[in-house]
Amino acid sequence: MAVESQAPERPGSPPLINVADYEQRARDLLAPGAWHASFGDYGDPEWETNTNNVDGFAQLYLRPRILVDVSRRDLTTRVLDVPASLPVLVAPSGLQQRWTREGELAMTRAAAAAGTIMALSTVASYSIEEIAAAAECPLFFQLYWMRERRITENLVRRAEAAGFRAVIVTVDIPGVASRERDKRYSWNLTGEEYTTVEKERILRNFRGVEPGTNVPTWATFNASVDDSVTWRDLEWLRMITTLPIVIKGLQTAEDARLCAEHGIDGIVVSNHGGFALDGSRATVAALPEVVDAAGASIEVYLDGGVRRGTDVLKALALGATAVFVGRAALWGLAVAAEDGARHVFEIIRGELDRAMAHCGVDDVKTVGADLVGAV
Amino acid sequence: MAVESQAPERPGSPPLINVADYEQRARDLLAPGAWHASFGDYGDPEWETNTNNVDGFAQLYLRPRILVDVSRRDLTTRVLDVPASLPVLVAPSGLQQRWTREGELAMTRAAAAAGTIMALSTVASYSIEEIAAAAECPLFFQLYWMRERRITENLVRRAEAAGFRAVIVTVDIPGVASRERDKRYSWNLTGEEYTTVEKERILRNFRGVEPGTNVPTWATFNASVDDSVTWRDLEWLRMITTLPIVIKGLQTAEDARLCAEHGIDGIVVSNHGGFALDGSRATVAALPEVVDAAGASIEVYLDGGVRRGTDVLKALALGATAVFVGRAALWGLAVAAEDGARHVFEIIRGELDRAMAHCGVDDVKTVGADLVGAV
Amino acid sequence: MAVESQAPERPGSPPLINVADYEQRARDLLAPGAWHASFGDYGDPEWETNTNNVDGFAQLYLRPRILVDVSRRDLTTRVLDVPASLPVLVAPSGLQQRWTREGELAMTRAAAAAGTIMALSTVASYSIEEIAAAAECPLFFQLYWMRERRITENLVRRAEAAGFRAVIVTVDIPGVASRERDKRYSWNLTGEEYTTVEKERILRNFRGVEPGTNVPTWATFNASVDDSVTWRDLEWLRMITTLPIVIKGLQTAEDARLCAEHGIDGIVVSNHGGFALDGSRATVAALPEVVDAAGASIEVYLDGGVRRGTDVLKALALGATAVFVGRAALWGLAVAAEDGARHVFEIIRGELDRAMAHCGVDDVKTVGADLVGAV
Amino acid sequence: MAVESQAPERPGSPPLINVADYEQRARDLLAPGAWHASFGDYGDPEWETNTNNVDGFAQLYLRPRILVDVSRRDLTTRVLDVPASLPVLVAPSGLQQRWTREGELAMTRAAAAAGTIMALSTVASYSIEEIAAAAECPLFFQLYWMRERRITENLVRRAEAAGFRAVIVTVDIPGVASRERDKRYSWNLTGEEYTTVEKERILRNFRGVEPGTNVPTWATFNASVDDSVTWRDLEWLRMITTLPIVIKGLQTAEDARLCAEHGIDGIVVSNHGGFALDGSRATVAALPEVVDAAGASIEVYLDGGVRRGTDVLKALALGATAVFVGRAALWGLAVAAEDGARHVFEIIRGELDRAMAHCGVDDVKTVGADLVGAV
Repeated sequence: MAVESQAPERPGSPPLINVADYEQRARDLLAPGAWHASFGDYGDPEWETNTNNVDGFAQLYLRPRILVDVSRRDLTTRVLDVPASLPVLVAPSGLQQRWTREGELAMTRAAAAAGTIMALSTVASYSIEEIAAAAECPLFFQLYWMRERRITENLVRRAEAAGFRAVIVTVDIPGVASRERDKRYSWNLTGEEYTTVEKERILRNFRGVEPGTNVPTWATFNASVDDSVTWRDLEWLRMITTLPIVIKGLQTAEDARLCAEHGIDGIVVSNHGGFALDGSRATVAALPEVVDAAGASIEVYLDGGVRRGTDVLKALALGATAVFVGRAALWGLAVAAEDGARHVFEIIRGELDRAMAHCGVDDVKTVGADLVGAV
Repeated sequence: MAVESQAPERPGSPPLINVADYEQRARDLLAPGAWHASFGDYGDPEWETNTNNVDGFAQLYLRPRILVDVSRRDLTTRVLDVPASLPVLVAPSGLQQRWTREGELAMTRAAAAAGTIMALSTVASYSIEEIAAAAECPLFFQLYWMRERRITENLVRRAEAAGFRAVIVTVDIPGVASRERDKRYSWNLTGEEYTTVEKERILRNFRGVEPGTNVPTWATFNASVDDSVTWRDLEWLRMITTLPIVIKGLQTAEDARLCAEHGIDGIVVSNHGGFALDGSRATVAALPEVVDAAGASIEVYLDGGVRRGTDVLKALALGATAVFVGRAALWGLAVAAEDGARHVFEIIRGELDRAMAHCGVDDVKTVGADLVGAV
Repeated sequence: MAVESQAPERPGSPPLINVADYEQRARDLLAPGAWHASFGDYGDPEWETNTNNVDGFAQLYLRPRILVDVSRRDLTTRVLDVPASLPVLVAPSGLQQRWTREGELAMTRAAAAAGTIMALSTVASYSIEEIAAAAECPLFFQLYWMRERRITENLVRRAEAAGFRAVIVTVDIPGVASRERDKRYSWNLTGEEYTTVEKERILRNFRGVEPGTNVPTWATFNASVDDSVTWRDLEWLRMITTLPIVIKGLQTAEDARLCAEHGIDGIVVSNHGGFALDGSRATVAALPEVVDAAGASIEVYLDGGVRRGTDVLKALALGATAVFVGRAALWGLAVAAEDGARHVFEIIRGELDRAMAHCGVDDVKTVGADLVGAV
Repeated sequence: MAVESQAPERPGSPPLINVADYEQRARDLLAPGAWHASFGDYGDPEWETNTNNVDGFAQLYLRPRILVDVSRRDLTTRVLDVPASLPVLVAPSGLQQRWTREGELAMTRAAAAAGTIMALSTVASYSIEEIAAAAECPLFFQLYWMRERRITENLVRRAEAAGFRAVIVTVDIPGVASRERDKRYSWNLTGEEYTTVEKERILRNFRGVEPGTNVPTWATFNASVDDSVTWRDLEWLRMITTLPIVIKGLQTAEDARLCAEHGIDGIVVSNHGGFALDGSRATVAALPEVVDAAGASIEVYLDGGVRRGTDVLKALALGATAVFVGRAALWGLAVAAEDGARHVFEIIRGELDRAMAHCGVDDVKTVGADLVGAV
């Protein structure tokens, strides 16, 4: 049975027992603009997709089985042959210094403590090499495909050289996203200090590319993301790296079949947490058709709306190998840096462990589809 | 990629980023009675149909396709062979001097700037000829069929002579509408000035008809609309004009089949924005059965509830050739005259363009039905 | 086209435009206890059935047909061969002196003015004979079947003798109803005056029965209602009267078939406005299975939740011959006595008339089932 | 017809007419922490399962039958051949001294007065022998299966020796439950007095076990519950007792079939009132598949969400032999000790009796499935 780590409680504040507590605490701590710009606002019809993700899990119920020996529960799994102590990974998320001074460095320590894998964003606050040098957890690299092909190649080769274990290609083209949040809310966090850090850190990953390329700045980043990439380009990517290739941002059976035809290794069913196209289904609602179409040769993961161990179990029952957690881990960072993120993972681990016991599941790798029904 | 025009911001007011912002700003600016009389009140069970229209789009989700080259998106289309820079047209709406001093004249300038087609209402603040003389955008003429056949004929012949490109016949008989809003709320806008304009302008179109006919006044207008028109009368209309004929206010497959049998050129699936019969479906819910029954020879459009570029894309995926926008454009007029209406169209264009990129759609004329699913 | 009567407006009060206005005005005028005891409270989960009735209509949408000549709409109908100017009848409702000094007498005048039929309750504030002598509208008699068979017989024979045109047998056994409202709220209306009237009037109908029978008082009324009545007893009723027999309180196809087997003339699909069994469907949801099972030989009516002309049209489309209106008419009485009730009928008539025009329906007697769809 | 007992009213408080009144009164009387820790909070998304249970009944409607002689209604039934005056039993619930000084002793008196069966929790405030000596109602024993097999055996043998009539084995493993409520809320009721009682009483049942066994304390209780029990262990239980064996906490057809194969006598469809696994269906939603799969040889009961007599009738229509009531009876205890719990049973009895009359049901043992439909 899992041992839960201690919550980083503060005297006088409500206890931090579940992810909703972290969400509330983070909201209390952050400037309203920073909160809204990055985490949206449930109930705001403008940003319904993120709410859909959360509600999607509530539309599913668990069908617990009884009188199974669950005295030993195995939460360990392998993702693209990389071991993890639980089927919950750190989602790639940019500029984590927004949430705590050491940003992604703190997150790698939380991931290592939790025994899980962390995905690093192209637009991290630290470079590929800085993270690789410091991290004690396994790393995946999230790739934004840049118009300038040499930059894309540079990023992938550096990630492979630095020991990253997979490339996650984001294909939902956030470069063209509406960014209404950015227009509506100030994206600066706490003012001066962050601004300084920001200047120093933002888009640090692009510093390593050769001079003469059209290196993106923050102002030109969106326009620098390539919106002409097709399956044929994926073949080029396959040629320049031996790393497993994961497609992130896929929502349909049609595209899952194309992944299978193109030898893709993994799929993240994702709508970019509601930041790309509004009007998408809950990712957990799209998961079944993707799993069916992907077939046995591709691992399927999910992100979006995971707040509870029962959410993880539902996703596994529907065929996911693992889930990625974004917001929840970032709220942990915002509340108590590494300790907060680590505790969030322990909360979810404890909930998953208990949910397994209640459901008669003793191994996350063999969760049956009958465990879930739809309201 | 579309270039968005600047919003007509005012210091100290919230930014105008989407149509909901325009709605709120217009509501703040208008007298409450004027607001309620013309735009109803979401959530008021009395006027549920308009709310249905908006909610209908939320019942549909998009199924985005990935790894399609969307670096060039073509938003242009043709409506009854008239080119438009985007598949979003100006809905016919009466007495636009209610919203800004130059009313429909300002709207024609916004439509021209947006590169789209404007439909002029029979009960416009300006006459057919005044609009035709000033407009730089293509024009359609919306016809209320009057009991006095000579008036109807006069209107159609003048529209054709003035260079209008189609006749849109409104068949949902608003002449018998309940007009609860009118009873409950004062319809005068801001008092004296409007009243003067009103006296001068209202029903200006009927001034051109021959003396001796029973020319409607504002007080007799509703009773002057013909509620005995049948398909046979449409054949008469076909004889007196060479313009394409569009039926507006159709909601069923049965009537779409009758349109096909009677050689109708276009259908606007519409419930008059909730102003005719309460208790209708969302227009986007009625759209599929109409498209199926209309067959390939008739273009189908929709109005009602369009607030977002994703709404446009959903309607196209369900078979619409284009949509008409009423309230959104009028809110633009009310907020900042021509500039406001133009900006509203640019907002929707930008949203549609981004939604296409996210969905793997590069041409509004070839949107597939698989792009949409129902919750 | 219908001419609407004038509303009995009061200076300074909101206008009375629809039934919801009457509901609100009545609520404002009545003592809270009287309101809650008799009209329940929407949204109170204890009394969900009445809310179900109202919501049931909202679950249906209209499918309007176009280009039908609706310049002449015929709202007249016949109910059990009795003519009515519209398919909306006055539901039986007890002790109408609670709402206005002349109670059912005022209601007969409103019914006569509206050209419709009124059903008189067994527990009216006036006797069968008093109402028959004064009424200029056709009358039906609502029968509570009493344990003492001679009382039941007496009531029926007196109704027939007095010229009533049908007997409506209430079979949902309100005698055993929970009457939570009565326990929770004081049922006295406005105190002294009503109490005096009450003493004089209540259960006036039982005064005409022969001495020696066990005449119910208000205190013993519930226990005096017979809960052992079966279909066999209906055969006895058939023998003692030549009046058409209507069963009120039926909700299932099974019982509709039994009505057909027993030669019943009419059925009121009803849940006693939510006052009998809580947890029933909306009556409009039960209507289709009843209509199907009843077959062509039985007229089917509905009560419960009718607030709008569109509700009437929906019920007709689903096979009802007419609807009964209870609460709405009583709110009219409470607001402005006869004038209020009459105006309520005119409001509904106007709404029905307009809804017919919008829907391409020119006769209430030939409304097709295709006019309605379910959300 | 049932005679309702008097409510234990207090001057100045709202009347106690239904279970919702008891809930509100109990909530007013208890310390907030105690309330939340034990009864959760409807609407709190953390504890959705309990809310699901209540809402599940609202998703079902009754289809009342008419003109049935219901002048004599038989509410008596037999549960595992033990007679009960109504098909509503006292659910096992721990430490009832939390709610009133005499805890389970008071509940036995209420059960005896109501003519029903009480299930005693393993973690009662009184021992098996104390309850057996005092109780005038039939008793069932609820068993938590302890890791130390000798303790489990001791409990069962003592219950059988003391005259208990069945063993209810709880299999939803609450020992591993999250107990978020316990972390978030203080579980002490009213302070000092309770604490003293607590020290004396808690886990009193374990005092009777032989020295040398690993007797659980409150602190070690959760970890002492065996999470390795399987169907094979049930065979051992069958060997050591002649009592009927009931499985509590089953939610699926698959497990109901296994019960049939293993000769189980009864099933309680239960999700532990929402205290075990969150994200379960309403028990009344799971009931039909369990009844179907269990077959005729097993009696099926339900707990969770029963608040009304109509809820009981719905469960019977779906195949339950009886229901267990937990929260409602405990609210009765908290409000007025034995009198309160007794009154709660009389309220439900009265509601069930009236619902039967309205539905044409004269015997709880022959309620047909056609009585219920789903919204």
